[in-house]
Amino acid sequence: MTRPIEIDLVSDTATKPSPGMLAAMVNARVGDEQRDEDPTVLELNARVADLLGMEAALFLPSGTMCNQIAFLVHCRPGDEIITAANAHVFGSEGAGASALAGAQFRTVPTANGIFQAREVEAAIRAPRHRSPRSRVVSVEQTANRGGGSVWPVATLNEVAAVAHAHGLAAHMDGARLPNAAIASGLPMAAHTAGFDSAWIDLSKGLGCPVGAVLAGSSGFMEEALFWKHRLGGAMRQAGFIAAAGLYALEHHYQRLADDHEKARLFAGWVHGAGGVVVFPAEVETNILFLDLSQCALNANAVATRLRDHGIRFGVESATRMRVVTHLDVSTAQVRQAAEHFIRIVEAR
Amino acid sequence: MTRPIEIDLVSDTATKPSPGMLAAMVNARVGDEQRDEDPTVLELNARVADLLGMEAALFLPSGTMCNQIAFLVHCRPGDEIITAANAHVFGSEGAGASALAGAQFRTVPTANGIFQAREVEAAIRAPRHRSPRSRVVSVEQTANRGGGSVWPVATLNEVAAVAHAHGLAAHMDGARLPNAAIASGLPMAAHTAGFDSAWIDLSKGLGCPVGAVLAGSSGFMEEALFWKHRLGGAMRQAGFIAAAGLYALEHHYQRLADDHEKARLFAGWVHGAGGVVVFPAEVETNILFLDLSQCALNANAVATRLRDHGIRFGVESATRMRVVTHLDVSTAQVRQAAEHFIRIVEAR
Amino acid sequence: MTRPIEIDLVSDTATKPSPGMLAAMVNARVGDEQRDEDPTVLELNARVADLLGMEAALFLPSGTMCNQIAFLVHCRPGDEIITAANAHVFGSEGAGASALAGAQFRTVPTANGIFQAREVEAAIRAPRHRSPRSRVVSVEQTANRGGGSVWPVATLNEVAAVAHAHGLAAHMDGARLPNAAIASGLPMAAHTAGFDSAWIDLSKGLGCPVGAVLAGSSGFMEEALFWKHRLGGAMRQAGFIAAAGLYALEHHYQRLADDHEKARLFAGWVHGAGGVVVFPAEVETNILFLDLSQCALNANAVATRLRDHGIRFGVESATRMRVVTHLDVSTAQVRQAAEHFIRIVEAR
Amino acid sequence: MTRPIEIDLVSDTATKPSPGMLAAMVNARVGDEQRDEDPTVLELNARVADLLGMEAALFLPSGTMCNQIAFLVHCRPGDEIITAANAHVFGSEGAGASALAGAQFRTVPTANGIFQAREVEAAIRAPRHRSPRSRVVSVEQTANRGGGSVWPVATLNEVAAVAHAHGLAAHMDGARLPNAAIASGLPMAAHTAGFDSAWIDLSKGLGCPVGAVLAGSSGFMEEALFWKHRLGGAMRQAGFIAAAGLYALEHHYQRLADDHEKARLFAGWVHGAGGVVVFPAEVETNILFLDLSQCALNANAVATRLRDHGIRFGVESATRMRVVTHLDVSTAQVRQAAEHFIRIVEAR
Repeated sequence: MTRPIEIDLVSDTATKPSPGMLAAMVNARVGDEQRDEDPTVLELNARVADLLGMEAALFLPSGTMCNQIAFLVHCRPGDEIITAANAHVFGSEGAGASALAGAQFRTVPTANGIFQAREVEAAIRAPRHRSPRSRVVSVEQTANRGGGSVWPVATLNEVAAVAHAHGLAAHMDGARLPNAAIASGLPMAAHTAGFDSAWIDLSKGLGCPVGAVLAGSSGFMEEALFWKHRLGGAMRQAGFIAAAGLYALEHHYQRLADDHEKARLFAGWVHGAGGVVVFPAEVETNILFLDLSQCALNANAVATRLRDHGIRFGVESATRMRVVTHLDVSTAQVRQAAEHFIRIVEAR
Repeated sequence: MTRPIEIDLVSDTATKPSPGMLAAMVNARVGDEQRDEDPTVLELNARVADLLGMEAALFLPSGTMCNQIAFLVHCRPGDEIITAANAHVFGSEGAGASALAGAQFRTVPTANGIFQAREVEAAIRAPRHRSPRSRVVSVEQTANRGGGSVWPVATLNEVAAVAHAHGLAAHMDGARLPNAAIASGLPMAAHTAGFDSAWIDLSKGLGCPVGAVLAGSSGFMEEALFWKHRLGGAMRQAGFIAAAGLYALEHHYQRLADDHEKARLFAGWVHGAGGVVVFPAEVETNILFLDLSQCALNANAVATRLRDHGIRFGVESATRMRVVTHLDVSTAQVRQAAEHFIRIVEAR
Repeated sequence: MTRPIEIDLVSDTATKPSPGMLAAMVNARVGDEQRDEDPTVLELNARVADLLGMEAALFLPSGTMCNQIAFLVHCRPGDEIITAANAHVFGSEGAGASALAGAQFRTVPTANGIFQAREVEAAIRAPRHRSPRSRVVSVEQTANRGGGSVWPVATLNEVAAVAHAHGLAAHMDGARLPNAAIASGLPMAAHTAGFDSAWIDLSKGLGCPVGAVLAGSSGFMEEALFWKHRLGGAMRQAGFIAAAGLYALEHHYQRLADDHEKARLFAGWVHGAGGVVVFPAEVETNILFLDLSQCALNANAVATRLRDHGIRFGVESATRMRVVTHLDVSTAQVRQAAEHFIRIVEAR
Repeated sequence: MTRPIEIDLVSDTATKPSPGMLAAMVNARVGDEQRDEDPTVLELNARVADLLGMEAALFLPSGTMCNQIAFLVHCRPGDEIITAANAHVFGSEGAGASALAGAQFRTVPTANGIFQAREVEAAIRAPRHRSPRSRVVSVEQTANRGGGSVWPVATLNEVAAVAHAHGLAAHMDGARLPNAAIASGLPMAAHTAGFDSAWIDLSKGLGCPVGAVLAGSSGFMEEALFWKHRLGGAMRQAGFIAAAGLYALEHHYQRLADDHEKARLFAGWVHGAGGVVVFPAEVETNILFLDLSQCALNANAVATRLRDHGIRFGVESATRMRVVTHLDVSTAQVRQAAEHFIRIVEAR
C-alpha cells in the first residue's frame, strides 16, 4: 500500500481549507452569480479591485481563465504578445492564447523570468502589413519558472511604460502577486500601477480551494464578462467559494512571509548537499528549484525515495526538482523533508 | 426599499444548497483536481459516467463549458453543427462554438425545440470542397426555449442514428436531462444511449451551487481534458462543490417530479386568466412560458407588479414570460404566485 | 470519348478572356503588388472604389476572400452576422466566417434571397453577456440561390439603415452587383450607398479569368490589408490579371443586358415544357433555376443527355437545375440548349 | 522627379515576365480551376508533385497561403509549431498560424536560420494536459533571414526523422527551394524526401508574376483543398498564371546558378569597403545582408543615395541592408550597384 503524502511540497496549490475558511464558506450569503446577484462574489470583486488599484474585478474559476480572458479582450487575431520564454502563459496553458485569441507569442529569453524595458522595445515590431502586430506585454509576478523571482516595481513600471509608449497593453499574470507584495514590502497596487489588467490566484499561497480574480478598467471588465460567459466561467452560487477568498485575504495574506522564510531555510539546508545546487541563489519567495545534475541520482529516483517517506517534491526533468512551501507545511516538516532529501542525495 | 424576492420562479438555477448539501460539502475529502487527486471529484465523475452509460466523465464549472468542450473535441474549424433554432447553444452561449471551435451552426426551425431525423438528413450537406462540413447534431434535453419539452427516446435514437449514418457525431446538451428522465420514466442512460457526448447540470433542478459533468468515450474525454485546461476550467480542491453534486444525485433526483407537478398546477391555474396563454399546452417538466399578447399589460409591467409582492418570473420579451419551478419554491408558494399573477393580468 | 462542352451554362465563371482582354493583359504595366508598386492594380483599385462610391478598394484573388476579409475586419470572435439562409457566405464558403473570424451566422429564411429591414430588426439580439453580439448584416446582390433576384435599392437602403441604427455594419456580397446595376438601371454606387463594405467579382459576368475587388472606407481598407497578407492574398505582378478587370469594366459591363435577355428568352422557351417550372417566375438577370419535380426525368439524367450534345447545365439536386447565361454563349446557342432540353424533358 | 529604379536588388520578387513567359501565358489552355477543369493548372500541379516527389500538389496564389494551409491541415488549435526564430512564417506572415490555425510557435534561436535535430528534440514538449502539443517542425529552404543559407540535406533528413519519431509532421517552406537545389547540386526531391508537406514559390527566383505550389500526400491535399476554398484561394481561369510557372520550371530553373554567382561577386566586391561586413561570410545563394554598424552612414541614408542612381537595396534596420540577385539584373548591373554602394559608404 502506498503511504499517503504527508509533506507535500509539489505546489502551493496543494493547500486545503482551514476550519476558519470552511466556516466562512458555509456561512456565505449567496445568489446567482450569472445575474450579478451573489453578494459574496460582488464583495470579493470589489475587494480585489481595491487591492489592485483597478476600477473593477471579476471572479473566475481559475488563473488560466484570467490570462486567457485578458488576451481575448486585449487582442484581435494576428496580434502578438511579448512574454518571457519560461512564462506560464507560454508553456503551461495549452497554447490557449493562440487557440482562443488567435494571438502569437514572441518570447524573451531570461534566466529568472524577468526582462527589461529595452528587451520589450527590441521585441516590438515595426508596423508592416505582413508582420504580426505587437499588442500586449505580459509579465508574471512572481516568476514561477524563474524560481519565484520578484519583479522590482521599478522594472514593472518601465516595462509597462514602454508598452504604452508603443500602443501595447500591459498585462500581469499575478498568480503569486501576493507573495511578491509581501516579499517586497510594497502593496499589490504598487506592483500593478502601470498595468491594464492583472489578477491574483486564490488557490495558491492564499490557500483557497478554487478561484482567481481578474482586475482592470471598467471597459476592460465589460468585455471580459462576455468572455466569462463564452468560455463557461459563469457559475451560479459561486459565493461559497468566493467566501474562501475573502477569508484568505483577511487571514492568509500577511502570513505568506512564513512561507518565504521556510523556503529560505530549506535552501540553506540543502544547498551543496551531495552536489545539489539551489536556484535561485537567493530564494525570494516560496519557490525554489534543485539542480541535481551534479548528483548521483536522477530526479525521479529521488522522488520515489522521498515518497517512501510520505514526502513529495515536484519533478521538472531528470535533473531538476521543484519545492514550493505553503501554509499546509510547517517549518518542522520542511526541515524533515530537507533531512530526508539530504540523506538520499548524499547516500551512494 | 426593495422587497426581497421570496418566490423566485425566474430559473431553477436560483436554488441554494440545503443544510444536508452544505454538510456534504464541508465534509468532502478533497485534493488537487488538476492532478487527478481530488477523490470527491473522481467519485462524481465515475457516478455520472455510470448514470449516463458512458465510459468517462469530467467535472466542469458550468454547462456552457460542457457544450463548448464537446464542440471543440468533435469539430475542426469549418465544420457545421445542426441544432434547433431556439437551442441554448445557438442563442445563449455567446456564439462560443464559432468563436472557439470555428464551427458554424445550421439551425432547424421548431416550435418546441424538437426536430426529427428527416430534418437532420435534409440539413446534412453533400460533401463539396466549398461547403461547410456537417459534423455534429446537437439536441437539448429538455428543450428550454421549447417549454421544457421532453425529446422522446425514440426520436433521440433516430436522430443519433441518422447522424452516425452520415459520419456526424451526436451531442446532447443535457442541462435538464434529469428532468427528462423523471418525466419520461426512463433512466438517463436510455436517453443518451445513441449519443457520443452528453452532460448534466448540477446547478439547475438538482440544486447545487456550481458545476456540470460532461460524459463520453475515453478517447473523447482524453481530448476534453486538454480543453478543460486551455479554457481555464481546471480547478484545485473542487471536491467541495463536487460533493454537492453527489449529494444531489442521491437526494434531489427523484423529487424533480414534484417540480413538474408544481408547473402543471401553475399552468392549470393561470391559463386563460386575462387572456394569458400557457406554452406548451401540456406542461411536461418544470418550465413553461406565458404568452401575454392578448393581455392588457406587457411583461415588464407584470414583472414590476409581481416584484412588489416579492415574486419574480422571467421576462423573455414584451409579451412573453417564463416560469420555472424548483426545490426552493413550495406548492403553496407557486399557488400564491399564480394568484398574484392572475389578479394582475385580470385587473384592468 | 467525351464530347467537349460547347455550350456551358453551368456558371458565368466559365468565360474565357476575349482577344481584346488578352491583349490588355499582355501589355499591362506591372510591379510588385505587395509593395503597392503595381500601377495596374492601383488603377483598378481606384476605378472600383470610384464605381462603388467608396474611399478605397483592394484587389483580391477571389470573391470568397472579399467576403472573408470583410467579416474579419468587421467582427470579433463571438459576433453574429445576419444573412439569408440561402446566401453564398453561409452555404458555399466552407463556414469561413466561423472558421476564420469566429463569427456565427443567424439566417433569415427567404424564397428569393431578399429580406426586409423588419426581419433584420427581429434578428438583432438584445445585448446580454451570454448572447452572440449582432454585428453585421450581409446581403447578396444579386441573390444567386434566389434566382439572380435584384434587391431593390430602397430595400438595400432600409436594411443598411436598420443595421446602422443598431450599431451593426452593412456588408454587400456584390458577386453579381454589375448585373443588378444593369438590370435596375441604377449605377453600382446607388446600390452600395448605405453599405460599409462591398465588392464585385471580375470573373463572373465581367468575364475575367481571376479576381475580385473589395471596397470600403480608408480605415476599413487599412485593416483589410493586414488580412490580405495573412490569408495569402497578397500577390506580386498581379497587374496582369488586374488589367483584365480594367478591360472588362470598359467593355463587358454594359453588355450584361444581353445576358439577361438571353436568360429571359430561355425561361420563356422552356417554362412548362414537360412539366418544367422556371424559378423565378420573372427572370431578372442571368440566373434561373429549373424545377423538374413534375418531370419524368431527374436532374442527373437530364444533365447526362445534355452532355451528349455538348451542353452543360448545373445540377443542384435531383429535381433542380441551374442555368446561367454569359458572354461566351450566344443567343443562338442558348436557343439550341433550350431546344435540346425541351426535347429531353418532353420525351418519355 | 524621382528617377525610376533601374537596378532593383530589394528582392527576387521584383522580376517581370520575359517575352517567352508572356507568350506561354497568352497561349495557355484554361478552364475553371475551381471545378478542376483548368488543364494548365492541372499540368503544373502534376509537374510540381513530381519534382518534389510528392503524391499531389495544389496551385495557390501565394507562398504565404501555402504555409498557412499546411499549418491548418497539420494542426488543431492548441498545437505547437517549432521553427527558427528568424523564420518567415514567424515574423512575416501576420501571425497567421495563430490567427487561422490557432497554433503557437516555439522558436529556436539560430544565426543562419538552420537548426539541428537535437534542438528540435529539446523543443518537443512532454505530453501534459496543460502543455501546448508539439505538432509540426517547419524549416525554410533556403533560410531567407539566415542569408540565403542552404540546409544540408543530411540536416533536413535528421530534423524530419526526429519530428516523425515524436509524432510531429515535417513541413518545408520552400520559397527558395529551387535555389537550394541548384546550389547543392541535389534535386528538389532530395531535399523534400523526409517531409510531409513542402512548396515552391513561382514568383521569386523563377520569375513568374504570381503563384506558388504546395505539395504533399493525397490525403493532405484533400484537406488542403477545403482550406483553399475557405481562404479564398480558389480561382477560375488560373491557367494563365500557371502557364508562367510551367515555362519557368523549363527555362528559369538551371539559370538560378547565375544569380548565385552574381551574389557571390557582389559580396566579394563590397565586403570590407567603408567598414561593411557581408553576411553570410560565404554567400551560398542569391541573398546577402550588409552590416553597416561599422559605417559612418546608416542604412536609410545609403538607400536614399542609391536611389539617386536608380538603385534599390532592402533596408532591414538602421544598420542592416539586404541584397537579392535575380534574373532581371545582369552581372554588369550588380557591379554597377556595388560600385555606387562602395563609393557611398567610403565617402565621408
